[in-house]
Amino acid sequence: ANDEMFTHTMGLVYLLQIDEEVAKLLELKARLGGDDGKHQFVLKTAKGTRDYNPKQMAIREKVFNTIISCFKRHGAETIDTPVFELKETLTGKYGEDSKLIYDLKDQGGELLSLRYDLTVPFARYLAMNKITNIKRYHIAKVYRRDNPAMTRGRYREFYQCDFDIAGQYDAMIPDAECLKIVYEILHELDLGDFRIKVNDRRILDGMFAVCGVPDDKFRTICSTVDKLDKMSWEDVKKEMVNEKGLSEQAADQIGEYVSMQGGMDLAEHLLQDQKMSQSKQACAGLSDIKLLFSYLQLFQVTDKVVFDLSLARGLDYYTGVIYEAVLTQAGVASVTTEAQNGAPGSTEESVSVGSVAGGGRYDGLVGMFDPKGRKVPCVGVSIGIERIFSIMEQKAEVSAEKVRTTEVQVMVASAQKNLLEERLKLTAELWNAGIKAEVMYKKNPKLLSQLQHCEESGIPLVAILGEQELKDGVVKLRVVATREEVSHTRRWRRVRNEIETY
Amino acid sequence: ANDEMFTHTMGLVYLLQIDEEVAKLLELKARLGGDDGKHQFVLKTAKGTRDYNPKQMAIREKVFNTIISCFKRHGAETIDTPVFELKETLTGKYGEDSKLIYDLKDQGGELLSLRYDLTVPFARYLAMNKITNIKRYHIAKVYRRDNPAMTRGRYREFYQCDFDIAGQYDAMIPDAECLKIVYEILHELDLGDFRIKVNDRRILDGMFAVCGVPDDKFRTICSTVDKLDKMSWEDVKKEMVNEKGLSEQAADQIGEYVSMQGGMDLAEHLLQDQKMSQSKQACAGLSDIKLLFSYLQLFQVTDKVVFDLSLARGLDYYTGVIYEAVLTQAGVASVTTEAQNGAPGSTEESVSVGSVAGGGRYDGLVGMFDPKGRKVPCVGVSIGIERIFSIMEQKAEVSAEKVRTTEVQVMVASAQKNLLEERLKLTAELWNAGIKAEVMYKKNPKLLSQLQHCEESGIPLVAILGEQELKDGVVKLRVVATREEVSHTRRWRRVRNEIETY
Repeated sequence: ANDEMFTHTMGLVYLLQIDEEVAKLLELKARLGGDDGKHQFVLKTAKGTRDYNPKQMAIREKVFNTIISCFKRHGAETIDTPVFELKETLTGKYGEDSKLIYDLKDQGGELLSLRYDLTVPFARYLAMNKITNIKRYHIAKVYRRDNPAMTRGRYREFYQCDFDIAGQYDAMIPDAECLKIVYEILHELDLGDFRIKVNDRRILDGMFAVCGVPDDKFRTICSTVDKLDKMSWEDVKKEMVNEKGLSEQAADQIGEYVSMQGGMDLAEHLLQDQKMSQSKQACAGLSDIKLLFSYLQLFQVTDKVVFDLSLARGLDYYTGVIYEAVLTQAGVASVTTEAQNGAPGSTEESVSVGSVAGGGRYDGLVGMFDPKGRKVPCVGVSIGIERIFSIMEQKAEVSAEKVRTTEVQVMVASAQKNLLEERLKLTAELWNAGIKAEVMYKKNPKLLSQLQHCEESGIPLVAILGEQELKDGVVKLRVVATREEVSHTRRWRRVRNEIETY
Repeated sequence: ANDEMFTHTMGLVYLLQIDEEVAKLLELKARLGGDDGKHQFVLKTAKGTRDYNPKQMAIREKVFNTIISCFKRHGAETIDTPVFELKETLTGKYGEDSKLIYDLKDQGGELLSLRYDLTVPFARYLAMNKITNIKRYHIAKVYRRDNPAMTRGRYREFYQCDFDIAGQYDAMIPDAECLKIVYEILHELDLGDFRIKVNDRRILDGMFAVCGVPDDKFRTICSTVDKLDKMSWEDVKKEMVNEKGLSEQAADQIGEYVSMQGGMDLAEHLLQDQKMSQSKQACAGLSDIKLLFSYLQLFQVTDKVVFDLSLARGLDYYTGVIYEAVLTQAGVASVTTEAQNGAPGSTEESVSVGSVAGGGRYDGLVGMFDPKGRKVPCVGVSIGIERIFSIMEQKAEVSAEKVRTTEVQVMVASAQKNLLEERLKLTAELWNAGIKAEVMYKKNPKLLSQLQHCEESGIPLVAILGEQELKDGVVKLRVVATREEVSHTRRWRRVRNEIETY
């Protein structure tokens, strides 16, 4: 009877599922329109995703070129991994955020999920190939079923742009290089002033310990501290006390520490701090911060780096130094409206307008994949490329300069009729000489429309063919901007360098 | 009672599903190992996918650079679309192959599928944004749940590399440019000799009509003809007669036509052909082939292009000219073992070793997405980049030249101890001058291991720091290959061009 009851119940559950499916199908049918056989497609991209048009792609290419040049200057190799991983590869790596992972439908075979970041596939790659040393970058799209906020540059499909150094090295040298890279990239992209906040998970944990946070609450209190860039200290304290059950006294002590910002001197000061110095972990972290700053001085980047005890970072897997870069200029605040820094005592700091890079040391992640748990220490940084795209797009819109979406140098045109074949022949000559050239796909286009096309797409030169030039064996090249004209014999390889100056 | 019966049956169906799930979970548990809490991950990528290691990425980058340069030389813009589309966007576009589409799990919200190619998303993009004119390229990964044959370069995740021209233009001009592009790319990649086969769907359809193929069998007979590059004519004929129910007489007539290969002269000859000239469609196609060849002559590419009546192409959506490029050199045959061309009369042709590019005209696809069915004529080409990667990888393996995976120009080293800080300082100077430089992340590395690193990763120069040079304010740059040494003052921007010559 119990079995029958169970069968019956499951039957009901299944029927409910059928109802849901039927409802979906009916809705679909409604959207498809009548029975005239003509399907009415819903013309859209999936929720939280977007197409990139040619203008956006031109900006994207420029940003990528700057970033990749920097990674290459620092001797990085690059790798690529598949867009989906075995589901179990991602399991247990993202804590609560696991619910945001996109799963593929079970169509028979392995259970698969879309990658959620590039760090876990990187760790899987290292463990799988038994690689213990690598400096690599990886630029690729990742997927999160988050609530999209596309106006603020937050998508369900978005690029990550990671640089990581794996290997057992002397302390803080690769860590300092990661910060140098963030500095160089933000400087070269010319996004306005920025700060790089630095902290260490061991300092946070030591601080929690000496402030009286119970061991099992370290991670959850840490993720509350992480909200300080979006919430006021009062709200953060409320969450600690009311939601996480921390004593008010402990919270207040934390509040004192997390308001501290400085440089190497602050690390020295805290090493003398009566409470803080009781924690071995904190002392190890503070000594490393000191060492880090000494390397950053050699790298000439200390003007932008600040040791900030309120920096916590969301991800579980960090084990040492952590960092985050924020733009501090008011000019870009409209792109990233949500951030406000309300940590007590930090009012003198200009308002933070959102993180554009972040990272840290994660010495345990690769070991999670290794059958024998062998560790490969790693430190890395992720450039917040989508936010940077948004800012660059906005800058391009207000700027007078037009974004070119092609690189065409010469438009091959004619004023007279019946010269299609001559135009095609000349265009092929230019292509064969490595010159970027275009021709209208019309037998007899009007000269005006050919010139208009040059104006619209920013083509600097136009080659105008006429009967006389053909007889003389020359081609007139006109500079679109100045209307200046020069005759050329048709030896294009010689002219190529000159053409490139326009 | 019927309701109860139904409920009961559905319950059983559901229970069977539960059994399946339980079996999967048990299998999973078994793989995860015992109950010691230590998870035993299966360290692999999903079936049919692969990681790219730095060496493969270096080759990939080189190939992409060649191809993208060509696309840009021809004035193409680029776009990007999301990796998944609404499921219904892909529905009804791929015929039988639809079963190979990867669906995402229904996690609430829209039903999504991974893109199967770049052409359907491109058509969706054009219709959605009401774009009627564009010349664009798109390089991205696509997904097919096919039986992977990874040794032959066939994966479930693979790159497509598409160039398309959309717009209403005068006949055959954009079509000729697509063929010019294929020619340029295959020539520049230096993969050995190649042929570009050209045909026209209208010629095929006209031929089927005059040979007595019933209208409703055009598409299925066409897909049988498409197998001629992998099957002998005898087997193709068998399939037509035995499986598709074609008369032997009709098949034999087709056999005569599909053995024909030539150039513009063959098109002229067929325009006079008593049977073929009865089909208006065939005549339209043949006239266009003539026109196409006249443009190809102006583009100087006719030496590799052949009008081949056996070329059919698999996809349904082609409406006019179609083409396919094959490598003809025996040297690369081992990469692509399956192909053999057995069309009658084609024995004088060297053995085809597999398609490396293909495309054609598809004037109806965009209209399928437009609510009012407005058409945007398109022609395009897809470069078979994965096969090209395989060939390039194979070439790199047999070649003596080492593939560099970084671009580092200078290794900053020291022979003496305690010079870490000086090494870091010099490295930063080089980075700041735009020079690609590396330094070992060790306090006191051995000179030998620093030099070995240069040898292994092909770094051409090593800057060797010593007390004496520091006193003199100079740095010795040693050419690794020749051991030649030159002293430099530390004005690195001046030395940069010289360094780039190594």
